[in-house]
Amino acid sequence: MSEQTKRTELNDLGEFALIDHLTRDFPLENKSSVKGIGDDAAVIDNGNFQTVVSTDLLVEGIHFDLTYMPLKHLGYKAVVVNLSDIYAMNAQPKQVTVSLALSNRFSVESLEEFYAGIRQACDFYKVDLVGGDTTSSLTGLLISVTAVGQGEADKLVYRSGAKVGDILCMTGNLGGAYLGLQILEREKQIYLEHPEMQPKLEGHDYIISRQLKPEARQDTIEQFAKAELVPTSMIDISDGLASEVLHLCKASGVGAFVEEGHVMIEQEVFQTALDFRLDPITCALSGGEDYELLFTVDAKDLEKVRFMNDIAIIGEITTVEDGATLHTKGGNIHPLTAQGWKHF
Amino acid sequence: MSEQTKRTELNDLGEFALIDHLTRDFPLENKSSVKGIGDDAAVIDNGNFQTVVSTDLLVEGIHFDLTYMPLKHLGYKAVVVNLSDIYAMNAQPKQVTVSLALSNRFSVESLEEFYAGIRQACDFYKVDLVGGDTTSSLTGLLISVTAVGQGEADKLVYRSGAKVGDILCMTGNLGGAYLGLQILEREKQIYLEHPEMQPKLEGHDYIISRQLKPEARQDTIEQFAKAELVPTSMIDISDGLASEVLHLCKASGVGAFVEEGHVMIEQEVFQTALDFRLDPITCALSGGEDYELLFTVDAKDLEKVRFMNDIAIIGEITTVEDGATLHTKGGNIHPLTAQGWKHF
Repeated sequence: MSEQTKRTELNDLGEFALIDHLTRDFPLENKSSVKGIGDDAAVIDNGNFQTVVSTDLLVEGIHFDLTYMPLKHLGYKAVVVNLSDIYAMNAQPKQVTVSLALSNRFSVESLEEFYAGIRQACDFYKVDLVGGDTTSSLTGLLISVTAVGQGEADKLVYRSGAKVGDILCMTGNLGGAYLGLQILEREKQIYLEHPEMQPKLEGHDYIISRQLKPEARQDTIEQFAKAELVPTSMIDISDGLASEVLHLCKASGVGAFVEEGHVMIEQEVFQTALDFRLDPITCALSGGEDYELLFTVDAKDLEKVRFMNDIAIIGEITTVEDGATLHTKGGNIHPLTAQGWKHF
Repeated sequence: MSEQTKRTELNDLGEFALIDHLTRDFPLENKSSVKGIGDDAAVIDNGNFQTVVSTDLLVEGIHFDLTYMPLKHLGYKAVVVNLSDIYAMNAQPKQVTVSLALSNRFSVESLEEFYAGIRQACDFYKVDLVGGDTTSSLTGLLISVTAVGQGEADKLVYRSGAKVGDILCMTGNLGGAYLGLQILEREKQIYLEHPEMQPKLEGHDYIISRQLKPEARQDTIEQFAKAELVPTSMIDISDGLASEVLHLCKASGVGAFVEEGHVMIEQEVFQTALDFRLDPITCALSGGEDYELLFTVDAKDLEKVRFMNDIAIIGEITTVEDGATLHTKGGNIHPLTAQGWKHF
């Protein structure tokens, strides 16, 4: 994080000046962004496209820990996780709104860091910040992001389109973000007990970046467009592979099997899992926040996906009676179960 | 509030079941709602209209107090305040997303109450709930609502269109929501000190309903359409009249005067202000949350607004050099100042 030589209290600015101040550096890039910040609402011209809207809430102490998450990374990630939802529809994100509730322990400079991360994500993914709301909280930081995208009606991809015989595919690799979090949590605990010790993060660059600075699979959507391929169903992998396979199956009324040996896991992820005495496939199935895409294609499109960059064929869609299963390397068949979400 | 005979813990359901449970009763009404809850994002077909998106964050202890705000009313209000922003663009709201961060002190039944209020607002204003996110918070309740609307490009109204000589108008009356809050706060303090005493709310029905169950001015937008009137500028009055006049003036690069005697204030508001030893016009100028509309029309449209239902002509747009002023009943001229927002 940058040196904090100057500290301006939020009170010194007031709401409107604060928003002006934080958002003055966001030009509108997309022709469809008719009106951004500065009115009651943002106006988006859609012509003959369809609008896609996605929203996420991130809560300090639940979704992120500011002791190891730099605010700039947090801003970046808050945008990216929403864009991932838009890409998972086979649509292009165009606009985002970002709302914050924050306590007075944050300075203007720290918020500038946060918005610098948002700006970086907006630049990289070519989306416009078009609105938001900023208010105070009694404790901690809370971030609400809404993304709006557009796509062509006949090319949008839902969770519900998978059918028996479709090929099940994933992008990238899984388990990294979860293990990155384990490393950061371990070093935090060591730091709390022995503040004089330096954190040991070497050798974990990849998995830590998966946790702190995830990317959304814009490139995959572009590959689909180039290949004139429309998946039959798609979902982003935010809660672990098992949970997302079950979502696809439920929405499509089908079953599926996943070949353990085909699920992509990076060498660093594999090794770190073993260091933590965890099963790497469990990290891939149940660890969240990788923001890869899980999708199905019609069997006739096999040749199109087979050699696509960074895409693996991991299974097949079966009948609903077969359920959702994992075919292990050892030849066993296990039912897939979602670890689910137990925040409360 | 309803009797709480049954208490289901949030943990008993889990996230997905909870969302399914809470949102199962929301049919999609609008043809443009192609896809609602149940996928990564909502899909909205806009044809040749423009999309309008607005978002708001409401924080317990800052924006609302659950000791006197029933959850059903809170759900209703959370939607309405966003719709008000859409109407203020001269657009029609069509969809909303609602995200919640909440602690485990809330039961499923209490959330049902909250969603019943959302449902009621959706029904009344004919909007569809199409998405959201639910997560836990370490303390309190936080609500993020995004509204999406549509309007015709040449009929959308911005803050920036007011010009010298335009007529300044407001809908309804002001100060009620603020005074309703004063009553509720007073009775809360009395209750905390003397729990055996009954709250005295009689005679304050109107102002309490202005605070607990505000409405957005859908009817005004309909009157505009019928009269084929497009205001030159518009804003909703959420932070008090003075603040909104200053916003319009700043965005339009103009000045304005407001005639004190023309600002609409209800008799009950007037009387309650005096009971609290407050100046009624100060309550109208600086009290928030009335969700009326402030707008300007070209002088040639005077005949169209003059006899419109529940609309008052309160002033005129002047040059920027004249500033924004209040012409008092006593014949004095005071500069308008915004009390602003000092949550931090």
